Amino acid sequence: MTKLTVVANIIANKDSIDFVKAELIKLIEVTRAEAGCISYDLHQDNENPAHFVFYENWQSREHLQAHLANSHIANYVAATEGQVELFTINEMTHIA
Amino acid sequence: MTKLTVVANIIANKDSIDFVKAELIKLIEVTRAEAGCISYDLHQDNENPAHFVFYENWQSREHLQAHLANSHIANYVAATEGQVELFTINEMTHIA
Repeated sequence: MTKLTVVANIIANKDSIDFVKAELIKLIEVTRAEAGCISYDLHQDNENPAHFVFYENWQSREHLQAHLANSHIANYVAATEGQVELFTINEMTHIA
Repeated sequence: MTKLTVVANIIANKDSIDFVKAELIKLIEVTRAEAGCISYDLHQDNENPAHFVFYENWQSREHLQAHLANSHIANYVAATEGQVELFTINEMTHIA
């Protein structure tokens, strides 16, 4: 298995920052308990509080895909529909 | 002191990827040895190899500022001048 790093950027709509933040926080403990999750850390930008970043490390891409297919991600997507301006996921390789 | 997380995005020019990567790698050990550096990890995007991300944790913003003022950063900037398409730094707060 090849370790995978994920950098996910989420920008909430300006009037939904607190709601989206609460929904993102709900993902943390349940995701850390998932198979293959090495780390899953949420951050908020100091200049733009609408901007959140998850920094994630997974034991493999298959573990990430299982995570993305889980019901708590579907619940998050349904709950925040129309309240997120931008959502990107970058799959990356840790160099050092 | 308040801990600070930094997400730095670097996109190299298409014909300078290997050169910029080597210059970024040079920063790792010297930065980890700096005062206040908790972690300093370099990643390369799996879909766009020109895209690099440093995920960094610092004991305080003052430690980050001292890092950015150091000669090895100035040397990196001088060495890669004209070879980097995009460079952004986001200062963030770790939520959990």
